[in-house]
Amino acid sequence: MDRFENIGVAGLGLIGGSLALEIKKRGIARRVTGFSRRLSTLKKAKERGIIDEYFTDFEEGVKGLDFLIITTPVNVVKDYFAGVKKSRPELLVTDAASVKVKIVREARRILGKDANFVGSHPMAGSEKSGIDAAKEGLFENRFVIITPSKYTGKENVAAVKDFWSAAGSIPVFLSPRRHDRMLALTSHMPHLIVYTLVSLLGKVKDKETLLKCVGAGFLDTTRIGKSSPELWAEIFTANRENMVSWISEFEKALAGMKKIVNSGSCRELAEKLGRMKKMREELDEKRKNI
Amino acid sequence: MDRFENIGVAGLGLIGGSLALEIKKRGIARRVTGFSRRLSTLKKAKERGIIDEYFTDFEEGVKGLDFLIITTPVNVVKDYFAGVKKSRPELLVTDAASVKVKIVREARRILGKDANFVGSHPMAGSEKSGIDAAKEGLFENRFVIITPSKYTGKENVAAVKDFWSAAGSIPVFLSPRRHDRMLALTSHMPHLIVYTLVSLLGKVKDKETLLKCVGAGFLDTTRIGKSSPELWAEIFTANRENMVSWISEFEKALAGMKKIVNSGSCRELAEKLGRMKKMREELDEKRKNI
Repeated sequence: MDRFENIGVAGLGLIGGSLALEIKKRGIARRVTGFSRRLSTLKKAKERGIIDEYFTDFEEGVKGLDFLIITTPVNVVKDYFAGVKKSRPELLVTDAASVKVKIVREARRILGKDANFVGSHPMAGSEKSGIDAAKEGLFENRFVIITPSKYTGKENVAAVKDFWSAAGSIPVFLSPRRHDRMLALTSHMPHLIVYTLVSLLGKVKDKETLLKCVGAGFLDTTRIGKSSPELWAEIFTANRENMVSWISEFEKALAGMKKIVNSGSCRELAEKLGRMKKMREELDEKRKNI
Repeated sequence: MDRFENIGVAGLGLIGGSLALEIKKRGIARRVTGFSRRLSTLKKAKERGIIDEYFTDFEEGVKGLDFLIITTPVNVVKDYFAGVKKSRPELLVTDAASVKVKIVREARRILGKDANFVGSHPMAGSEKSGIDAAKEGLFENRFVIITPSKYTGKENVAAVKDFWSAAGSIPVFLSPRRHDRMLALTSHMPHLIVYTLVSLLGKVKDKETLLKCVGAGFLDTTRIGKSSPELWAEIFTANRENMVSWISEFEKALAGMKKIVNSGSCRELAEKLGRMKKMREELDEKRKNI
């Protein structure tokens, strides 16, 4: 790809910081400019060499960019759209938020239908957050879902696709609606279900004994229960309709499980669990062939 | 500890095979004798040096033992109790099953109140099963829950405790009832909840797209969904009352989550998730101090 001159990364957390590192390591741009609400984050990113320079005044800093990636929490993205609209309404912009319908709507409302915005969501992350969690290789061989709408220009889609490919990711295209429906199941529901499971620990008074009854299965399964509550509250509420719909599906499935467990029919239960195990193993099989 | 002359391991899967390896590596017994319903498993265990010898006739092989560990699935344990009762009613016996009330009751019914049985459950395992999954070090620094009842002799408890310590584990004592209540939450519920989550994948027709929307969070969280359906169906039904009770608690907690997500109150949700994250992190903190 043609190198960018100056890519801006707004929001220097796990995703933004790791992306800035990748841009520099792979020479995707000559310069990386950082934006953040926290001066301490900007200073740390500069010191660690994650960015080349930073601006506390976004409208000033955005002037020198030829591409902006907004990697802030869901509810902050629109503030950067407003800044772009004021200073550089024609700038090529993408984001990395976990929901897409809300973001694409806000882009249309604030930047307009003819703006150069393309929604993205890299399938990369961790229960850790913040600039200290930033690391190289986070996007390597990971899918990135790009969500063009009917207003999105083909050249912009191609440019954003090439950017993610250059960062090591595998681009996939989905509509914003389809993305939100799928991700509600594959990412948002696991988080909500794990948070709910962890909440049951509150029912046990004897924490010392509880601790001794916890094995690797519990710890691995609930690792994502250590994720940022603020980030996930924003994601769940931004993807509210899909979440409520999948929670209802889960409730039905769980009621079915409860009934079979309560009936004591071991063979029927084993058959049911066997079908579930098969679905999970098929995922592994298919991933091998990527 | 005084070495055993000849320890029998009945059921040479992940737990039994790994335990046999540990007994040999650490010199806990001069000989390890294997028992299994499958001749192919016995032959493989002998070839790999996991056991010294095997018997297909349990009542014959049990005669030479001074300690027997039954590591079969929950519903098979009682068959070995019956064999012990016939051939060696005074033998020191333990097990490694994931439920304890059922096992302790069966031991009492089949072996009698005065028998030398002590229930055990090592907090070690994996989604993998079978002799091929057996490995050294599986019990190193893992808690093992020993569940004496009012009929269990103190010397037998001490002997079983010393055995697990010699295998690298950290013994903990709980009543069978308390064990089953705790483990329903820390081990059985995560499995049931993950199986249920995985079952929702069946609602998505386009598996190729689904695959591309799956990240590390989903894969780690649902790893235990690849566990043996037969083993877990037996565990869920053996621990039925606790499971139904915890599923009901989960249903209540999930209904609460659904309500808040549906209300769109992001701040209230973030506070709730924050409390859950804190509970999960406290587990990590406490584990550091073990």
